[in-house]
Amino acid sequence: MSVNTKEYRIDSRKSVELDSWPTRYEGRLGKEEGLETLAELILRLQRLQALLYADGSKSLLVVLQAMDAAGKDSTIRNVFGPINPQGCKVVSFKGPNSTELLHDFLWRVHQNVPRRGHIGVFNRSHYEDVLIARVKQLVPKDLIKKRYEHINNFESLLHDEGTRVVKFFLHISKDYQKEQLQERLDTPEKLWKFSPQDIPERIHWDEYQKAFELAFEKCSTSEAPWYIVPAERKWFRNLLVTKVLVETLESMNLRYPEVKFDPKEVRIP
Amino acid sequence: MSVNTKEYRIDSRKSVELDSWPTRYEGRLGKEEGLETLAELILRLQRLQALLYADGSKSLLVVLQAMDAAGKDSTIRNVFGPINPQGCKVVSFKGPNSTELLHDFLWRVHQNVPRRGHIGVFNRSHYEDVLIARVKQLVPKDLIKKRYEHINNFESLLHDEGTRVVKFFLHISKDYQKEQLQERLDTPEKLWKFSPQDIPERIHWDEYQKAFELAFEKCSTSEAPWYIVPAERKWFRNLLVTKVLVETLESMNLRYPEVKFDPKEVRIP
Repeated sequence: MSVNTKEYRIDSRKSVELDSWPTRYEGRLGKEEGLETLAELILRLQRLQALLYADGSKSLLVVLQAMDAAGKDSTIRNVFGPINPQGCKVVSFKGPNSTELLHDFLWRVHQNVPRRGHIGVFNRSHYEDVLIARVKQLVPKDLIKKRYEHINNFESLLHDEGTRVVKFFLHISKDYQKEQLQERLDTPEKLWKFSPQDIPERIHWDEYQKAFELAFEKCSTSEAPWYIVPAERKWFRNLLVTKVLVETLESMNLRYPEVKFDPKEVRIP
Repeated sequence: MSVNTKEYRIDSRKSVELDSWPTRYEGRLGKEEGLETLAELILRLQRLQALLYADGSKSLLVVLQAMDAAGKDSTIRNVFGPINPQGCKVVSFKGPNSTELLHDFLWRVHQNVPRRGHIGVFNRSHYEDVLIARVKQLVPKDLIKKRYEHINNFESLLHDEGTRVVKFFLHISKDYQKEQLQERLDTPEKLWKFSPQDIPERIHWDEYQKAFELAFEKCSTSEAPWYIVPAERKWFRNLLVTKVLVETLESMNLRYPEVKFDPKEVRIP
């Protein structure tokens, strides 16, 4: 029973209706078998990361977006926790600070892309600038339209220069979000993560979903695809994300660098 | 059978003879029991890191120094691999680039200290500027002497502003280094890590040991202590480093931030 990652990938420039995409995996793969598969995939991911690091000529950028409380932090902990922290950098994009606002929206993002050999993880990203910026009307609609194209150009630059880009939307329902927020309120060690501001944001749920749909339609490319991850079962969410990363790294033609000496000839004094 | 971390800590301004410090743990703790203890310590480290992140007011800077092939990378993978990558940033300091050379030696280091809530790991550090800089006479001896004081002042600044600093020297013998370098030559997946330049560096072994001794004597302070880790048995090396980190974090009086609302009063629409 294997998971076909392509089923969750958005084809280039296809229109997307999130309502028709599952938020909860209900396929035939069971949890027990799924966790075994995940453990194997994590091992493969660890080996591939070591190879990416040794190869040193390419990098991988992973973009994570979702509604509040969908599990971005937990995904990062579970998928990227097991890999070598020396070759993995997580960057969390909050609202831009005053210096960042003095620049174009890709300025701070570009500074944080992974160097060759590394995996970079964006917890939120430049997509906020076509999501919250659209819903809250932070910039004119005309500019949002242009931003989709600027994002595509930017991601295409990264791709051509050796950085592969994969983007995940952790898809949940409005009811599931409610449960998760309630859990934060009920759990002393999670309470600090609860922000009363999350509540008025729920009023804009449909507008955010619409903004996501547009972003996926405009910015899912063959070079930098979006995946819509049913995120309400954590084991499946982790499995799908890990599998996409493994497949992506395997397609990158990574290899150990050639050395300019014959190891058999070297004598260590 | 428990490990007393204080035995491996260098007292403030005490002179150090590395020859009299063990490179291989030969104490009474066995490997099996040691690995169990390590697993427990890693769990505690994970919980403490989550708390450090939630607390958000303090940070921890871990400095790793050693001769080549002593196991810095492996220590990072083993000790920091299991913790949440979102709150942990590893910075590897190579030789300074041309822009960095236009500045004082602490300039690039300061830019890379961990933000509040994070653990920062330095794979090599500003100490190279009193180690290789001394051995290779990259700067005048007078300046090296001043640098010890500048390092102390800098680390004291970090301490007073909320960043705890702990520093580890992974201590190995010259013979052990030879074995490790030979293993890189003999193992195809490790060959890329072998640098022919490591060989002439071995000629300077004693000078490096001397430079380390001076750095420890001048820059081990109660605020930012140096630990000399017997590094030839990996399980013990990992155990000692992890235990020091756990003890340090436990002494930092971390707590979940107070919230300004009553969770029982919040209703999620």
